[in-house]
Amino acid sequence: MNFVSIQLNKENKTALYVQLYDGLRELILAGKLSYGFLLPPVRKLAGFLGVNPGTVVSAYKLLEQNGYIFSRAGSGSYVAEIPDLPTEEEQAALPDPEVELIPSPPTDLTTGCIDFATVMPPPDLLPIDDFKEVLIEVLDRDKGNAFSYQDSQGFLPLREAISVYLKEQGIRAQAGNVQIISGAQQGIDIVAKTLLNFGDYVFTENPTYPGAIAAFRSRGAKIVEITMQDDGIDIPDLEAKIRSFRPKLIYVMANIQNPTGFSYSLVKRNRLLGLARRYNAIVLEDDYISELDVSNNPLAPLKALDRDNRVIYLKSFSKIFMPGLRLAFLLMPPELVTKVLTSKHHSDISTSGLTQRAFDLYLRKGIWQKHIAAVRRIYLERYQTTLAAMEAFLPPKVVCHRPHGGLTCWLALPEGISAQKVVQEAQAQGLLLTPGTAFFPRHAPDRFIRLSFAVTCSEAIVQGIRKLGKLLNSANTLR
Amino acid sequence: MNFVSIQLNKENKTALYVQLYDGLRELILAGKLSYGFLLPPVRKLAGFLGVNPGTVVSAYKLLEQNGYIFSRAGSGSYVAEIPDLPTEEEQAALPDPEVELIPSPPTDLTTGCIDFATVMPPPDLLPIDDFKEVLIEVLDRDKGNAFSYQDSQGFLPLREAISVYLKEQGIRAQAGNVQIISGAQQGIDIVAKTLLNFGDYVFTENPTYPGAIAAFRSRGAKIVEITMQDDGIDIPDLEAKIRSFRPKLIYVMANIQNPTGFSYSLVKRNRLLGLARRYNAIVLEDDYISELDVSNNPLAPLKALDRDNRVIYLKSFSKIFMPGLRLAFLLMPPELVTKVLTSKHHSDISTSGLTQRAFDLYLRKGIWQKHIAAVRRIYLERYQTTLAAMEAFLPPKVVCHRPHGGLTCWLALPEGISAQKVVQEAQAQGLLLTPGTAFFPRHAPDRFIRLSFAVTCSEAIVQGIRKLGKLLNSANTLR
Repeated sequence: MNFVSIQLNKENKTALYVQLYDGLRELILAGKLSYGFLLPPVRKLAGFLGVNPGTVVSAYKLLEQNGYIFSRAGSGSYVAEIPDLPTEEEQAALPDPEVELIPSPPTDLTTGCIDFATVMPPPDLLPIDDFKEVLIEVLDRDKGNAFSYQDSQGFLPLREAISVYLKEQGIRAQAGNVQIISGAQQGIDIVAKTLLNFGDYVFTENPTYPGAIAAFRSRGAKIVEITMQDDGIDIPDLEAKIRSFRPKLIYVMANIQNPTGFSYSLVKRNRLLGLARRYNAIVLEDDYISELDVSNNPLAPLKALDRDNRVIYLKSFSKIFMPGLRLAFLLMPPELVTKVLTSKHHSDISTSGLTQRAFDLYLRKGIWQKHIAAVRRIYLERYQTTLAAMEAFLPPKVVCHRPHGGLTCWLALPEGISAQKVVQEAQAQGLLLTPGTAFFPRHAPDRFIRLSFAVTCSEAIVQGIRKLGKLLNSANTLR
Repeated sequence: MNFVSIQLNKENKTALYVQLYDGLRELILAGKLSYGFLLPPVRKLAGFLGVNPGTVVSAYKLLEQNGYIFSRAGSGSYVAEIPDLPTEEEQAALPDPEVELIPSPPTDLTTGCIDFATVMPPPDLLPIDDFKEVLIEVLDRDKGNAFSYQDSQGFLPLREAISVYLKEQGIRAQAGNVQIISGAQQGIDIVAKTLLNFGDYVFTENPTYPGAIAAFRSRGAKIVEITMQDDGIDIPDLEAKIRSFRPKLIYVMANIQNPTGFSYSLVKRNRLLGLARRYNAIVLEDDYISELDVSNNPLAPLKALDRDNRVIYLKSFSKIFMPGLRLAFLLMPPELVTKVLTSKHHSDISTSGLTQRAFDLYLRKGIWQKHIAAVRRIYLERYQTTLAAMEAFLPPKVVCHRPHGGLTCWLALPEGISAQKVVQEAQAQGLLLTPGTAFFPRHAPDRFIRLSFAVTCSEAIVQGIRKLGKLLNSANTLR
């Protein structure tokens, strides 16, 4: 076993988990643990090295953050591919979609950690019994048709039910302009396939969702970042760059942006649409989580203002409902319907008909609406607890934006304090957080932290933020 | 309504459906029916024009064949995008993936046609009750976990069950090298994303599956066709081209190829692998339908011979089982596992966990194996009926290859007879067939027809092939 080469010294001033991180990192960089290698389970390695499991968990987390390994729920941690051994600095600048896309399982129970990293609702919030009922109803009603090939655009009754739902949100929609897809990530991939060719420019907010960056890069597109401010995209920055680059596509999240939680003001929504129109760009609006907007007068999605058919509206039904269901839709300008359909078709023919039929019934019966209302109540409480705890326990120099809702907060640390070091130190103390660096396509500033309350109950939120406050108050060591 | 400009003349020598085809085609080419336009339902247009519905069906089919419209099950027919108004000749050469990918519904009952075009099993062959049982069992067992995010590589127990299944087919496999995907089309798309960049070369058999062509073209890859012979790919052709082009990928179907039904000899399998090794190409083996190989000593898939890890094996579980389920897998060389996982991840995060868990149980309980055995019995009878009827009723100059099984036969017409005209004339007489032109990436010869017996019972097969025989015997008019 390779791991005999790792020497841990409990007398050493360097924390044990950092020593273990260094040892494993060296083995990976030297190619002794090659990519795809399954690392030993936490308890096994802990037993072998004579340390407690928390030390191994922290070392693995740090390796994952820095891109040396990646973990998969239910499977374990694997050595990642290390392309051309980038420097630490370059490494920090690489977006790591894994951080966002493959959530860690909630760890409260197993390791005693407080999880502020995971952004998915825990399994016990998912509405199993209701969904089982509609599944059975669909199978009894549709028989073999539930398993035949579907219309590639999507099951028509579901597209109609979605149009009705959208009208309730202030968006005019027709079933003929709705494309059913297998989750939001596929929506981004399909829009990229439809609109972007090798060398085309695409604009994103900065920071943004790493999965979008990955999909655009996979098309060979060039990404130009536009600074994100707390009332939306930086309009002068957008205007200057759109004139030079003439992007085909602008990818935005106008309501409760991921990762910042910022929402666009009405003025900025209209300015964005005006610029897109003048420079003939398509806007892809990813409605990440507007169901959890708990502000008094939430603004409708950008799509509601889209008078000249320039916005593709992307919405996942499964993200906070049933992430593993893989169901989302695109509402498109009519002239893109056929092209997007073709891209969907060449990607995977169609989305599971059974899922579509069951969700159709779920929506028509109003069970979805009831479920969302219940989830909102739970998260409203956690949201309020989080904001109050941040106000009470975090040093005043830490800037905490108050999002309009959602599942996360975005913290800006004072100048000179490294967010990555804070995250590492917090992990050593049993707090899991996500460093902001993962969300910047490049030149990532090391001063942001995303704190998620998706899987953490109010009691643990208070306890965790108090701990974080203490850590930040003694943050001179983290400079 | 635009359609008033269409004048049909019953006295005219040209068949009514051809007159209607010409009228609609002109409206489309003139841009009066623009792309995405939903054509009126068959009965409505028939009523409006005072013709019988069969005339409209035939005209629509002809428009579809020639790429002017496309139809979607349950939704209707739409005007297709007509890029730069290609000539008839160019049009004939364009692959139309729709033909293959979006099957028409079985038309026997509704229009009196005999359907030799559809390649999907009819809904009444799908094992609904068994599947419902395993779905319920999974929901009761796994609760919310069935709807949580899945490991992007796939549900581990399913990957393990697949490894066991593959070992029974003579293929060594480990769960760690299996990637679960949402149907075979996604497998091709993901492999293309993983291995092909803009301008790379990929080899395909000629003819081949149009959905693969579309996925490769979407990556900006250049396609080089290798002639397909009745014992497999043309080895001297492959050898000459592989030396010049150095393709990254060779896409093949070694058992019961689509559309020809040809299977590779053992010698050609080994030659292909040897050349791929010498010129460092990866082979993507699409195991299209080997479960329906009814020959006495069926050869194992190419992957069983793959001693130096050069073959990616692609297999759909849903194609003849439950097409709308969207479930397939890739078995990969270990060094591609992480790259393919990343591509899957950026495409749609993961395949539906519920589907994976249910199918896992379905496989473990042996229900899948029983279902395939039942389907084999049904198709063996149709296969034998089809071969016997072709021998009895088709002119000796029509070359009918005897496939080892599957759902289709491939007919080569005598020199000088246009397959497209035969297909058109057959449609006018109520026989739906697929012209071979759709399966050639370019320079499509107009002399092949694919005849499918997937949705047609033995009685209708005999009746239909007798009719086709008569038509071909009087084929001088089709030159």
